[in-house]
Amino acid sequence: MKLRDVHVAGVGMTDFGRHPDRGLRELGEEAVQAALTDAALPPDTIEAAWCGNAIGGVLGGQLAAIGHVVLRSFGVAGIPITRVENACASGSTAFREAYLSVATGQADVALAVGVEHMTAWPTAQVIDAMAGASDAEVEAPLGLTFPGVFGMVARRHMADHGTTREQLAAVAVKNHRHGSLNERAQFGVPITVEDVLRAPAVATPLGRLDCCPVSDGAAAALLVSAEVAAEGPRVAASALTSGGSNGATLTSFAPTRAAAAQCFDQSGLGPADVDLAEVHDCFTVAEVVHYEDLGFCRTGEGGELAESGATALGGGIPVNTSGGLKAKGHPLGATGIAQVVEIVEQLRGDCGERQVDGAEVGLTHCIGGFLGGDGAACAVHVLTQN
Amino acid sequence: MKLRDVHVAGVGMTDFGRHPDRGLRELGEEAVQAALTDAALPPDTIEAAWCGNAIGGVLGGQLAAIGHVVLRSFGVAGIPITRVENACASGSTAFREAYLSVATGQADVALAVGVEHMTAWPTAQVIDAMAGASDAEVEAPLGLTFPGVFGMVARRHMADHGTTREQLAAVAVKNHRHGSLNERAQFGVPITVEDVLRAPAVATPLGRLDCCPVSDGAAAALLVSAEVAAEGPRVAASALTSGGSNGATLTSFAPTRAAAAQCFDQSGLGPADVDLAEVHDCFTVAEVVHYEDLGFCRTGEGGELAESGATALGGGIPVNTSGGLKAKGHPLGATGIAQVVEIVEQLRGDCGERQVDGAEVGLTHCIGGFLGGDGAACAVHVLTQN
Repeated sequence: MKLRDVHVAGVGMTDFGRHPDRGLRELGEEAVQAALTDAALPPDTIEAAWCGNAIGGVLGGQLAAIGHVVLRSFGVAGIPITRVENACASGSTAFREAYLSVATGQADVALAVGVEHMTAWPTAQVIDAMAGASDAEVEAPLGLTFPGVFGMVARRHMADHGTTREQLAAVAVKNHRHGSLNERAQFGVPITVEDVLRAPAVATPLGRLDCCPVSDGAAAALLVSAEVAAEGPRVAASALTSGGSNGATLTSFAPTRAAAAQCFDQSGLGPADVDLAEVHDCFTVAEVVHYEDLGFCRTGEGGELAESGATALGGGIPVNTSGGLKAKGHPLGATGIAQVVEIVEQLRGDCGERQVDGAEVGLTHCIGGFLGGDGAACAVHVLTQN
Repeated sequence: MKLRDVHVAGVGMTDFGRHPDRGLRELGEEAVQAALTDAALPPDTIEAAWCGNAIGGVLGGQLAAIGHVVLRSFGVAGIPITRVENACASGSTAFREAYLSVATGQADVALAVGVEHMTAWPTAQVIDAMAGASDAEVEAPLGLTFPGVFGMVARRHMADHGTTREQLAAVAVKNHRHGSLNERAQFGVPITVEDVLRAPAVATPLGRLDCCPVSDGAAAALLVSAEVAAEGPRVAASALTSGGSNGATLTSFAPTRAAAAQCFDQSGLGPADVDLAEVHDCFTVAEVVHYEDLGFCRTGEGGELAESGATALGGGIPVNTSGGLKAKGHPLGATGIAQVVEIVEQLRGDCGERQVDGAEVGLTHCIGGFLGGDGAACAVHVLTQN
């Protein structure tokens, strides 16, 4: 069955950071309103919606109704609204479901909204909640938190490939610099390699500045058929994959490799065609691993790529021009859609000081959960200029 | 875009009830294995999967990974696996997503699995967790639990339509009788109207025997294209709707009426064509309201319909032959798929003592969440004999 062309007609997001006075509903409403305004579409044109939210039930007691609660204030009722949860890939899963609904002709206008409110709880409690994205019967009770997972990934990558502490720090320095050019980023201050190396240890070798922060925020995207709007960035490929197979190496995530391969196959493009990418830099070493798994460099050379400056603004393949999870922030359910916001704005040429010249092809990559040495769920999307 | 025919090639479920020695993973594995065996399909034929689970994160700390964890033991990796959560309609939402993936040509074999483990926690904690299916910022803090919601619905239905306490009790008596014929039901003992009226009050006028129990369990269904198997019950219609609009009456749920109308439109059938239905009898009065909203009787006549025996086995439109949520049990994420299990087995003529003669058209109805006097999410499916 041939899929229809799907365009992103509008995007919107809140500032990422601390929102002590606002909850899931208000954050979600702001993002949805911004996307509607951007698309110049009224709320009653939305025919289906998916909401990405990972731990709103665990931390704040809000279940399914969050998507319904957010849309209720727009007078939207009757349409299918579904909360999807794939840990840190919840937002990109919502984007994919909305994309497929338009691509397969089920809707002409579909909404993906992602929202998370995390800073109102103690960080230890947030980390504990996120541990549920691994196997809660086996891995989580062993004390395997996500900083611990990526500490192990870093050690293994250093041992196998000679990756250095400074190379990992280069990722944080780059993303903080990018974030300083994005007014919606949680962290607006550039940092140095020295700052990263001197930061308190979290899960050695990773220190505090190797870790993305705990964040509040929301993001939304409106996907439409060509009948509604044939302009604006087009979704050229979408893939969602899963891990948990045996043979995981810790230094490469099979779901990323599979999702990237599917997206390049669908779009007829390759890694060299990608002008910029937003990838899941929950920890500095994660971005290094993703460079390799996405084909931006060869296996083992991710650390060198980071240090070379090729993935910084002005380099050959700028990564996380938004600041990434590291500096822009990581409100779990919003992250995957915020990545799309950045790519869409870059493809439109609207990014001011952090604009990538000649951006025509952008890629988003989100990975969530951890099972037996591998990521659990990975979503990759490729967007092109119309 | 024309949708493809979708058949349910295999179904499976665990016993519903108390499973103190088993968790989400083991329950899910049993249901998936049963569905695979029933369909005579190996695990590696599954191309996409959706997992319905509502409060596994809140109660047991297990997030996204539950779908991945369940499938991991079958060696299934790489495919898209997504957890969906629409409160009590989580399972039927998973079924709908799996259906659409086959209908739109995205997969030839898709799995819907639903699972919940609830009995390991104090009932008060479970009720509190479920309150998150309303607006956690507004309704839940007011103390609006679901027994409270349906107590209000019952009072209003009695006041507006003259529905009697005995008519509500008739629903419980019928569903316990049906449950006594279903070896997988949580409650296997018939009860009388007197038993219901004498039970301790929960949310007046509803007493303990008007309420479905807290349950553990899992259910799974394999949906396939006609290329894989053109036999077996066919999904003739699927609708997912949302509520939360103004003007709700408490005695009628707009999302049910909308979903039923869509399904009858899609299938070319009407309420009179339905041979049996599994509806969301979380409380006795809910089943009465659903009779009316689904068109099985006129508005206000649901109580009389229950008392008449028309919805009992042997009546004109048997409802909840499985025992329903009331007697079979209600492990939230599993319920919507367990409804499909019953309809499929009835359409196959495999239901023994509780078989509905000449069952050719079956309907499932799940409603989850509560917003401003209305249900939040409602899924209706119509299944026919091939």
